[in-house]
Amino acid sequence: MTLAAEHLEVDMRERVLVVAERLFREIGYQKTTVADIAKVMRMSPANVYRFFDSKKAIHEGVARRLMGEVETAAETIVRRAEPATQRLRDLLTTIHRMNAERYVGDAKLHEMVAIAMEQSWDVCVAHFERITGMIGAVIADGKSGGEFNAPDVPLAATCTCTAMIHFFHPQLIAHVDEKPGPTIDQMIDFVLAALAPRSAPTPASPPANQR
Amino acid sequence: MTLAAEHLEVDMRERVLVVAERLFREIGYQKTTVADIAKVMRMSPANVYRFFDSKKAIHEGVARRLMGEVETAAETIVRRAEPATQRLRDLLTTIHRMNAERYVGDAKLHEMVAIAMEQSWDVCVAHFERITGMIGAVIADGKSGGEFNAPDVPLAATCTCTAMIHFFHPQLIAHVDEKPGPTIDQMIDFVLAALAPRSAPTPASPPANQR
Repeated sequence: MTLAAEHLEVDMRERVLVVAERLFREIGYQKTTVADIAKVMRMSPANVYRFFDSKKAIHEGVARRLMGEVETAAETIVRRAEPATQRLRDLLTTIHRMNAERYVGDAKLHEMVAIAMEQSWDVCVAHFERITGMIGAVIADGKSGGEFNAPDVPLAATCTCTAMIHFFHPQLIAHVDEKPGPTIDQMIDFVLAALAPRSAPTPASPPANQR
Repeated sequence: MTLAAEHLEVDMRERVLVVAERLFREIGYQKTTVADIAKVMRMSPANVYRFFDSKKAIHEGVARRLMGEVETAAETIVRRAEPATQRLRDLLTTIHRMNAERYVGDAKLHEMVAIAMEQSWDVCVAHFERITGMIGAVIADGKSGGEFNAPDVPLAATCTCTAMIHFFHPQLIAHVDEKPGPTIDQMIDFVLAALAPRSAPTPASPPANQR
């Protein structure tokens, strides 16, 4: 394949996903057919199948795009030159806000997420792993700078993610406001307390009154 | 109503709930009718309606019973003469274990829970509040004994509950083993770290080497 043809293919795949996402939002995943997508794009279904071999593949592509946007925003925060505590707070808040924007009050998109979690579990797991990895990167920075105590960074990252699931999970997030529970800021304070330097002094720690 | 009549009524209500729970488990909530319950009890549906005015009321009674068993087990742990840290660990583990026993691998009971969360939200909220209250009681003990740092006990209790939701929630618990994430022991360690005494010394705290 020539470079131009490759570009064209990437571009066409992207266009199929944009149209598919719009239709999934408007008429729902179950009701959208590949023929509907083809019709909007003024092409034949066979042509759409040149880029995606099934409706499931299109669905996975749309899910990856939606999750990818969250990952891009998260990565920007991770790379900032700010204290780890501030970055972790922003990171957790941003994931919550972006997931809420995507999945609250949009029953059709909600349906799509439920299907992704059922049928494309590996796509979801890959997303969790990338998000947990970024949380881990910030915790590692905080650990080396003395802001956090985290003997096992990957474990601290997965516990942080699990502690925040009430604010991250598409199927729970919709009910955050109805359910009794902490605000996201209170929950982040709790997580930061779990990561705070311990009280037992070690030679590497600064004196307690400087913390 | 005489005392004997009252006892009889309590007993009959209990018997209806036991039969209903069995049928909900065997044939599912949706498919079970009040007539089915009456038939097993060899009485008329009208007689069942003397004790519960709707199928929904029976369903709520069954849900309260299932949740009540967890609350009773939790209360026993709260009252033990043991360090708060040990009691909190046992409490969180027991809630997870009992919820898992109730709701994992039992699709029919799972259906019942989903319906309870949709239609009898107040019953669920009352259960959360009792469980959170018990967690709070143990945290308060640990705070006064110097085991925990928790300036706001109800807030610490609701954060603890929220952090554990992955292990408590009937609809998440079923997937605990498939999903990447910490074990329950690791998660409890993380929560205990969030409740651990802070590093800044106060006159009331014992020296760091005694903690």
